[in-house]
Order: sequence, then structure tokens, then C-alpha cells
Amino acid sequence: MESGQGVVDAPALPEGTFEVVEEVEGLLAGVGERAPELLAEPATEALTSGGKRLRPLLLILSARMGEPEEDALLKASTAIEVLHTASLIHDDIVDRAESRRGSPTTFASYGREIAVATGDYLFAETFTELAEIGDPRLIRAFSEASQGLAAGELEQYRASGGTGGADSGAGGAADGANVEAYLDHIRMKTAGLFKAACVAGGTLGGLSLRQIDALATFGQALGIAFQMSDDIMDLVGKPGLMGKGIGTDLMEGTVTLPIIFALREGDTGTIRRALAAPDPSPEILEAAIKAVLATDAVAKTEVWARGEINAAFEGLGLLPGGPEREILEAVAAEVVGRSA
Amino acid sequence: MESGQGVVDAPALPEGTFEVVEEVEGLLAGVGERAPELLAEPATEALTSGGKRLRPLLLILSARMGEPEEDALLKASTAIEVLHTASLIHDDIVDRAESRRGSPTTFASYGREIAVATGDYLFAETFTELAEIGDPRLIRAFSEASQGLAAGELEQYRASGGTGGADSGAGGAADGANVEAYLDHIRMKTAGLFKAACVAGGTLGGLSLRQIDALATFGQALGIAFQMSDDIMDLVGKPGLMGKGIGTDLMEGTVTLPIIFALREGDTGTIRRALAAPDPSPEILEAAIKAVLATDAVAKTEVWARGEINAAFEGLGLLPGGPEREILEAVAAEVVGRSA
Repeated sequence: MESGQGVVDAPALPEGTFEVVEEVEGLLAGVGERAPELLAEPATEALTSGGKRLRPLLLILSARMGEPEEDALLKASTAIEVLHTASLIHDDIVDRAESRRGSPTTFASYGREIAVATGDYLFAETFTELAEIGDPRLIRAFSEASQGLAAGELEQYRASGGTGGADSGAGGAADGANVEAYLDHIRMKTAGLFKAACVAGGTLGGLSLRQIDALATFGQALGIAFQMSDDIMDLVGKPGLMGKGIGTDLMEGTVTLPIIFALREGDTGTIRRALAAPDPSPEILEAAIKAVLATDAVAKTEVWARGEINAAFEGLGLLPGGPEREILEAVAAEVVGRSA
Repeated sequence: MESGQGVVDAPALPEGTFEVVEEVEGLLAGVGERAPELLAEPATEALTSGGKRLRPLLLILSARMGEPEEDALLKASTAIEVLHTASLIHDDIVDRAESRRGSPTTFASYGREIAVATGDYLFAETFTELAEIGDPRLIRAFSEASQGLAAGELEQYRASGGTGGADSGAGGAADGANVEAYLDHIRMKTAGLFKAACVAGGTLGGLSLRQIDALATFGQALGIAFQMSDDIMDLVGKPGLMGKGIGTDLMEGTVTLPIIFALREGDTGTIRRALAAPDPSPEILEAAIKAVLATDAVAKTEVWARGEINAAFEGLGLLPGGPEREILEAVAAEVVGRSA
């Protein structure tokens, strides 16, 4: 599970959307530069390390179904990416992750002390941006998402064998009814922020409560499908690229939905060996990926992701038609299309 | 510097104040219990580990100079202590601190992973509480204070010899014009939250902008004096208790104001030896404390703290008279009285 990686190549955007995303890009760099002395460099690196800005995009598209005030839109779109970045920095401390998006993590480059402080600073910056907008509904959407992100940090830790719980360890997590645990986790770590982006956007656009609810449903379902798609790609590789998946989740002992399914019907021993090894060899990893792909696990996960996307489409039906809704539909279709 | 320790024994409180602090106590326990599975225990321990609730008290007294809405007052008073607690948990990760207020830190008991997530959860909880109040002025006060706390985490790290900056290390920090660095640090780590408590209180009480400004001045100055008093007590021991100070700051290489003054006029070599040692022996520590106390360093720090308290009193002049103002004055007098 790499919820930080954007996997959606956005199709043509409605007029003006790209310009707003560009402005957000500039504002994110500014957040880094304004940070206090020792945090400015790590903050800038983390904020400009090539995220796909999917969350700001969702927020902007949701807002533009109504009539948002431009300045508030820019601030909120910046804030959601700042929050996402803060969360990734702290995730990487918990997971002791060395690299993300092909670059060293803040934790790896600067150590845990600076990573803790940089993440904290960016969390605080998120709410400073929101305070300037002044709408408590946005604060609520963001703070609820933040609580989910924090709770999810530890679920990840536990899933990957941390000492946090009595039933910890990859073996424990892979047993029994842990589809629910997986869903809880991705609701908190990925879907919560997608939902917050859509809700904040709809709120800024002045949409009706019913429409904002529909956007919440859409964002949540899209986030779940997005994460499932990401988890599949970790096994089968990215579309358009030759070669196999890299098996990061197996390597880190993270039990994703396709791995759960594979453990129920496949060569359980081979998969468990990769999950349990602290640092599995390429041979062990390759064998485990093969064992997963020999089952229906990926197909089952795709079916589930498509179900989520169908739920997302239903939500969209209540929203004003136009280029923004079309692109949200395209984004949703793309998420499941890529992994098919 | 132990900004987490309350040193003020509150004199008799205005009617109803104690009851509100008691209710806050209950709400803090509730925040811990409501936390997700693996965070509930560490959060509850951290939230109920015997803090003196000075920040909630300041908020309540400030608010009651006007006419606050009770529910909002309870939420904000809880939120400021939750934020303070979150900040202490993350400080202890950065400083690798083993104990606080006589108990093991979250970091020591549960490891850095759980400590990161627990702090993050409590940061998010702070803003969830504030979102329920719905006043953007409170969000601004708290988020600005949070940014200072985050920036200050690393100053502490640098002062204590972390690898974070080119000029790091106790020796570097002890040279030259570092009174300003000390003041910057305590403004961020202690005074910022005191100020936020007073501003949030005044805002909830419906005071005038001018009165809220006066409360901001008061809170800031009180926080600075409070920290200086704490730093003195680390050297001379707590009033009413026999025996010497414990020299934690010297031990940890933290260059406080009395230590800066002592380095300018005293037995610099002896003091530096304690500051520079990774784990100084009791003899080295005792010699260093003696060397500090042989100078005018404590007296000079007391003079500075009294100057801050005078500034605080000036601010109070603009505020409505009554039992709340009297107790704020008593709290301020107590802070400098204790170290005299």
C-alpha cells in the first residue's frame, strides 16, 4: 500500500483547472520556504517531490461544480496537499521507510527528529491556512480526516509486524476476517482524505448539503478503489510499463486485499514466507508474487474496486452536470481501468 | 527547560473555576478513551498524568472576564491541554526523553511509532474540538501556537547537540548572542501556548479587541517568566523542598538563560564539560551547578523574569477588574515569587 503515489494521469481538464493546480504548486513551494530555518529544506523537498496533486484536483473540481471564492479555493487546495504531505512524513517514521516516489524520505535524509518536527509544522500549517478561510465546516472535514490518518499510521505499523498489539505480526494480520481490517485501514489512510477534499470543495462551491453528501460518498468510494488499484499494481506492475510488480507490500509485510484473497486459496506457505521475512530475498519475493498471481486474488480485488467505483458514480448523479462532473467520472473510470 | 511541568500552586480560585477545571479533567479522560484501539492507552496515560492544567486555567480565567458560553469554554479548555499534551509527546521523541513528571514518557513506554501516532491523533483531536466551537479566531490562535511548538521542537534538538544544523552542539549554542535564541525558543515552546490560552479565553468571553490584545501580552509575558522560573528551579531546586536542583538542563546540554549568563562570567570550563558530556557523572553535574550558582546568573535571570511579569501586569490594567483578574495577578506574582 503506497497511498502516496498518484496513479491517475488526468485526462483533459476543464478550463482554468490546470492553472489553479499550477498556482497550488507555487503556494506549496511557498509553504516550504516560509518554514522556520531547519524545517524549510525538508518541508520544501517533501512538498515539491512530484506528487500528482490528486487531492487538490479533487477539491478544485468539486468546488467548481458550484461557485467558489478563488482565494479560499487556492488556500484549501494547498492545505489538503500540505496535510497529505505531513501525514506521509510521519507514516515514513512509523514504517522506517527509506524511500518514497523514488526519493529518500524525510526520515531517511534528516532523521526522525527533523521528520517529527517537519510533519508537525505542516499539520499546523494546514490549519493556519484553513483558519484564514474561516469556515468551520472545512476545519471539521480536515480534522476528522487527520484523526483517521493518525489512527491509520498505527494500523499500518501493526499490519507490518510492529509490537503494538497482542495480535500483531504479518501472520496474525493475515488470518481470519481481516478484509474488514484492511477496509478500515484504507478508509482512514486514503479514502478519508479523498472524502475531505470533495467535501471541502463542495462546501466552498456553495453546493447543497445533499450534493455535498453525494461528493462525500464519491470521494470515499474513489479513495477505496484508488487504494485497491494501487495494491494491485504493486503485484502486477504499472500499466504501460513492461515487467512485473515490485512486491513492496509483500516485502514490508503489509497485507493488502489481493494478498488476503491469495492467502485464502493459494500457496499460503510461499506468500507467508515473504510476508514474515524481515528482508526477503528477490527469489522469495518473486515466488510470492507468482503465488499471488496464480490465484484469482487480483481479479477479485478488481471486482471489488469496480463495485466501489459504481457506488462513486451513483453519488455523482446528484451533482450538477458539466465538465467538472465529466472529469470526476473520467478519473473514477481511470482508476479501475488502469488495473484491469 | 521542562515546559511541561506546572510550577504554580493556584491560590483560591474564583467561584466556579475549580468546577470547570474538574470538568475539563473528565473531558480529557474521555478524549483518551475515545481514541482508536492502540492509541487509547498511551493517550489516556499522557492526558491524565498529573499536569497542573495551567493552560486550561488561564483560558477559563481569561474567558470569565467576559461572558463565555459554557460548552465552548469547556471544549476550548480541553483542546488547549490536548494540544499541550500532543506537543510534549512529540518533544519527547525528538529529545529521546525517558521520563516526564516522574513517569515514563509515551516514547519510552510504547516506542516512537506509537508516540508519533498518539501525538498526531491528539493534534487532530485539538482541531476537532475547535471545529465544534466553530470560531475561526480560535483556530487561528491554536494553529499559530502549533506552528511555534513544531518549530521549537527542533530548536531544542539543536540546542542539545543534535546533528540538525551546521552550528549545532552545546558549545556552539552557548557562544555569542544566544540570549535571543533562548528567547525565541521559549516564545515558541511555552509563551505561545500561554498566549493562545489567554487569547482564546478572551475571544470566547466576548472581550474587546483591545482587551484580547492585552491578554495576549499578558499570556506571552507570563509564559516567558514561567519558563525562566522553571529554568532557575532546575538549578536551585524547588522552593519548599530541601536540597539542590537536579541540573537536568545541564545534563541534557540545554542552554537556558541562567546557564548563558553563567557561561559569560563563571567557570566556563566546568559548565561546558557538563553541557558537552553525553551522560555527565553526578560529580561533573554537581560541579557545574556550583559553578553556575557561584555567579550572578540566577539573580540576573530573576530580574529578567520580574521584568516580564511587570509587562504582564501592565497588560492586565486594561482588563475588567474582579476575581479573575486578581487570580491572574496572583498567578503572575507566584511565578516570580517562587524563584526569588
